[in-house]
Amino acid sequence: MLDAARRLGVDVDSVCGGRGICGRCQVVPTFGAFAKFGVESRSEHLSMPGSVETTDYRPRRVLAPGARLGCAATILGDLVIDVPAASQVHKPVVRKSVNLDGLIVDPTIRLHYVELPTTELGEERSDLRLLQDALREQWSLSTTAISSAALIALQPALAAGKRTITVGVHSGGRVTAVWPGFVDVAYGVAVDVGSTTVAGHLCDLTSGEVVASAGRMNPQIRFGEDLMSRVSYVMMNPGGEVELTASIRQALDELVEEFVEQAATTRDHVVDLVFVGNPIMHHLVLGIDPTPLGVAPFALATDLPVDGMATEIGLDLRFATFHALPCIAGHVGADTAGAILNERPFEADHHVLLIDVGTNAEIVLGDRNGLLAASSPTGPAFEGAQISCGQRATAGAIERVRIDRTTLEPRFKVIGAEMWSDEPGFAEATATTGVTGVCGSGIIEVVAEMFLAGIIAHDGTISGSTGSPRVVADGRTFAYVLRGPLDGRPEDQLRIAQNDVRAIQLAKGALYAGCRLLMEHAGIDAVDEVLLAGAFGSHIDPIYALVLGLVPDCDPANVRAVGNSAGSGAARALLSATARAEIAGVAREVTKIETAIEPRFQEHFVGAMGIPHATDPYPQLAAVVQLPIRRPAAERADRPRRRAR
Amino acid sequence: MLDAARRLGVDVDSVCGGRGICGRCQVVPTFGAFAKFGVESRSEHLSMPGSVETTDYRPRRVLAPGARLGCAATILGDLVIDVPAASQVHKPVVRKSVNLDGLIVDPTIRLHYVELPTTELGEERSDLRLLQDALREQWSLSTTAISSAALIALQPALAAGKRTITVGVHSGGRVTAVWPGFVDVAYGVAVDVGSTTVAGHLCDLTSGEVVASAGRMNPQIRFGEDLMSRVSYVMMNPGGEVELTASIRQALDELVEEFVEQAATTRDHVVDLVFVGNPIMHHLVLGIDPTPLGVAPFALATDLPVDGMATEIGLDLRFATFHALPCIAGHVGADTAGAILNERPFEADHHVLLIDVGTNAEIVLGDRNGLLAASSPTGPAFEGAQISCGQRATAGAIERVRIDRTTLEPRFKVIGAEMWSDEPGFAEATATTGVTGVCGSGIIEVVAEMFLAGIIAHDGTISGSTGSPRVVADGRTFAYVLRGPLDGRPEDQLRIAQNDVRAIQLAKGALYAGCRLLMEHAGIDAVDEVLLAGAFGSHIDPIYALVLGLVPDCDPANVRAVGNSAGSGAARALLSATARAEIAGVAREVTKIETAIEPRFQEHFVGAMGIPHATDPYPQLAAVVQLPIRRPAAERADRPRRRAR
Repeated sequence: MLDAARRLGVDVDSVCGGRGICGRCQVVPTFGAFAKFGVESRSEHLSMPGSVETTDYRPRRVLAPGARLGCAATILGDLVIDVPAASQVHKPVVRKSVNLDGLIVDPTIRLHYVELPTTELGEERSDLRLLQDALREQWSLSTTAISSAALIALQPALAAGKRTITVGVHSGGRVTAVWPGFVDVAYGVAVDVGSTTVAGHLCDLTSGEVVASAGRMNPQIRFGEDLMSRVSYVMMNPGGEVELTASIRQALDELVEEFVEQAATTRDHVVDLVFVGNPIMHHLVLGIDPTPLGVAPFALATDLPVDGMATEIGLDLRFATFHALPCIAGHVGADTAGAILNERPFEADHHVLLIDVGTNAEIVLGDRNGLLAASSPTGPAFEGAQISCGQRATAGAIERVRIDRTTLEPRFKVIGAEMWSDEPGFAEATATTGVTGVCGSGIIEVVAEMFLAGIIAHDGTISGSTGSPRVVADGRTFAYVLRGPLDGRPEDQLRIAQNDVRAIQLAKGALYAGCRLLMEHAGIDAVDEVLLAGAFGSHIDPIYALVLGLVPDCDPANVRAVGNSAGSGAARALLSATARAEIAGVAREVTKIETAIEPRFQEHFVGAMGIPHATDPYPQLAAVVQLPIRRPAAERADRPRRRAR
Repeated sequence: MLDAARRLGVDVDSVCGGRGICGRCQVVPTFGAFAKFGVESRSEHLSMPGSVETTDYRPRRVLAPGARLGCAATILGDLVIDVPAASQVHKPVVRKSVNLDGLIVDPTIRLHYVELPTTELGEERSDLRLLQDALREQWSLSTTAISSAALIALQPALAAGKRTITVGVHSGGRVTAVWPGFVDVAYGVAVDVGSTTVAGHLCDLTSGEVVASAGRMNPQIRFGEDLMSRVSYVMMNPGGEVELTASIRQALDELVEEFVEQAATTRDHVVDLVFVGNPIMHHLVLGIDPTPLGVAPFALATDLPVDGMATEIGLDLRFATFHALPCIAGHVGADTAGAILNERPFEADHHVLLIDVGTNAEIVLGDRNGLLAASSPTGPAFEGAQISCGQRATAGAIERVRIDRTTLEPRFKVIGAEMWSDEPGFAEATATTGVTGVCGSGIIEVVAEMFLAGIIAHDGTISGSTGSPRVVADGRTFAYVLRGPLDGRPEDQLRIAQNDVRAIQLAKGALYAGCRLLMEHAGIDAVDEVLLAGAFGSHIDPIYALVLGLVPDCDPANVRAVGNSAGSGAARALLSATARAEIAGVAREVTKIETAIEPRFQEHFVGAMGIPHATDPYPQLAAVVQLPIRRPAAERADRPRRRAR
């Protein structure tokens, strides 16, 4: 199995080199019919555990339930195998940081220390009433409610704290946490539940400090790489939403565990959790069947903020409340609400275009006079899927590309190594990871560079007449060999094929069309600022985004990546009750544009397939572009210029 | 095992007579150390399953997990064995009915049918917002919240009902239930969680009709017969409250199942549950460790009403809310609040004494000007415990006794048979049950009759000089043989021994002292009405209660049993939001009297040990008593009359 994993480029760890000693290559076979893969994964397609696993290994270490040693198990037929995160060398690079500039900490849960009188026989009040009276007298708080967990914990805490306790009070009215004695630290969790990764932060609710950050792959990936395939899973497997919900809730709970360990605290000190996510993730965390989001009219179950106890969403956090930011529309989720909260276009006095690119691109346009939002079906090409050499943004993936305008020779950088491929030491730096594929930002760059180097034309066709040995015939079209022996077999190369360029053209056409549609609704022709949110937005070079025409023309100085805005927005809502109320109001007022029913969207889309000329309609780009552009031979001839759109 | 059960008088069913065919005698052995019984119950103390259980029986029927056939398993040493309710011939007689006179139905949960517009692409509102808007427009309801279960159910119901749904709305503000289409029936459950029995009713929330009633033994009995032994169990087994909570919650869930079956409905149509119970049961259902209630100062965790979702207290009722009536004091529980709500002493313009006798007696005294409450430690004698021939009120128990004033011969009635023991056909009528013991009401009657027949004196001493062969020597005291051969062995007889009379004297002394203490606090010398609530109160004859001096003197016409007032109060709170609010206010204003710190309680208690003379201090009883009284020989002599108190 370990051999197969290596051959397929699947990341499975091993320290002992397959000797059945280290146990790092533990994998979990899953059996059943997997329509998605067209595979019947049967137990007889896997060798039975032999002596390496049963006799040699087990006595020394623990093999997880259901797990096999990848180095010892032999594949005999079609199989579906899970590689747990712990068995991966390259844990996903969750490069999400948090931006809390200007935030005034004002948490929903506040701590209050109280000393209760020792009760004596004949005391007329219960301990809860004594607590309520103390909160009223000592803190001027009128608490009328208490969570069941806090009520259960009240008397033990009073006993342990010798009648002194600290309570967490939600919105000044509801006791939700109780600890013995004096406690001055409580934590909150802010999570962005993405389709691919789940990442978040543990924040000190008093100081606002981010004390731990962690991320992991969304384990739902086993049910389908992209969102729609997960919805299909539910449609084809009634009750499948329960599995999906359990899967994501478990990942959240593991994330909490990681936070608690990092911060050396306990789960009882986590008192609040805010999450954002696209509509499907948002609904699944809440246990809502997302099927209606997969078919027109893509109706949300709720577009209001959702509050509850964390135990209601399956988290082992008895004292924690949870808050889900509101979704905005069927394809515009609470993650977009988080990004809006963080970037605050609703306060801008210029036109802000806020874009978060994933499988769909969520687009928000507006200023202090109002916001418009839409979702464009970009597909997964920007994430490296549907690209022949594409892969996720993990170590070993090419993320930066430059092509010499004259020689057409490429150089590149991979995630996990600092130097370019033409610098000394590159081979050593990438020895463990290899160079395994091209991630989303790398694909944008390589296609843009191919365009700038004249390898592809405005209509996206790869030219066969460059004279470079790197451009090779590929059936009836051509491909550009980015890496690998030029005379080698295609499977030993990383190539950009014509279909890869077409996939990027479709994706960027959809994104651009969505932006133009909102601009039309807003009655504007240009935007003043473009904010690129999310992992993809953080890693593409804005210049290349403009070169390819992903976004409307704008002064490149005003096109900038804003990182994981959604996650930062979640953290803001965690740390500020004011922010929480603010985004609830703003989200409700956003005007939703449904691209699917707008005929103009299709027109923009068709028109945006080509790669724009730098000078027209991109005058601002032309004014600053630093990249020499080499025209393809076909265009350098004196033919009339085709308008890309 | 079946033989042992029969020899010990334990009720185990059998139809095939021990042939290993019927499976009615299934019992569940439990292994471990049982400090309560001083028993180490070991698996080797029970025979292994033999061919009867494994080969003959199993293929035909199902043996429950962990169960053994009582007729096939052989006891080889000390054992603890559970007899499931299903394996008992005589299911407990749960004689609790409901009294809802004058109730105006006004449930907390109301049903509202709404038709939502079919959403089309471009609809800006989520389904929840469409629902909220429809409730506002069609029902003038401003709902701002929805339970997670209702939110999860919303879209599936809209799909199944073709955009028509019925919702249950709590207090006009929170959607807690959702069904497809038009639904006009919803049920609520009212339960009285007693230490011995758990009984309740399923009510139609629209009509107020009681559609099902059921009861069962409290399964916590395995942890201790009375409340304090269950608290001791928790004290000695840290975490034991979790077991006790799970046990009572399971019983509640089974009760719900029984209701649902009786009413031929589904769990999804049960939308509300109200429960009452003594403080320990109340806290255990809520998952609160009752340990503080077992030691001074007997502090309640909460004396406020508790609201939540039924799932929070472990019930499989996704759409049901729950409401616990408030406890009043450490020994005066939500059951007393229920009784107060039902009997409404807070509206009376005369002095009402409301008494609920169990292991403790809860006593409420007052009128429209205010209520006082206390609990008296009567002990379990009134329930037949600590009485040599005592037993619970199940079939076969003597419940009525008459003793001929001249011959001193007894006659009696047993539960489950209609005729008296001296009537023809009695032997046949009791053939299956036998005459197994004396229940609480029977003990009151036999002791009172013994007094009235001159067998016992005012100080409670059984006279050895009656000349009747029924009064036999019993060590240094005497005993009255109620049943069995007069010349037989004591173990073949049912006898009332001197210690039994003393136990009743202690119990009634405590009850009387509690009543007097409250009367003193109220500044009154007599009460106008005495209401006897609960199973015991329902079955004792008020005249005998007065004869023995259980309660203060009162016109016997105004001493009456009011049945399961607590359960009826729970049903009122279930069916009327007004009643729910009313008792919350009344309970809060009750003045609590703690008998343990009142020196006068001890004085009253000591003074109340004797059996009162009918004429003094019981003039009202003397005026109406129809029972001829024969003075014991010792008193008939011309000795100065001893004052019983």
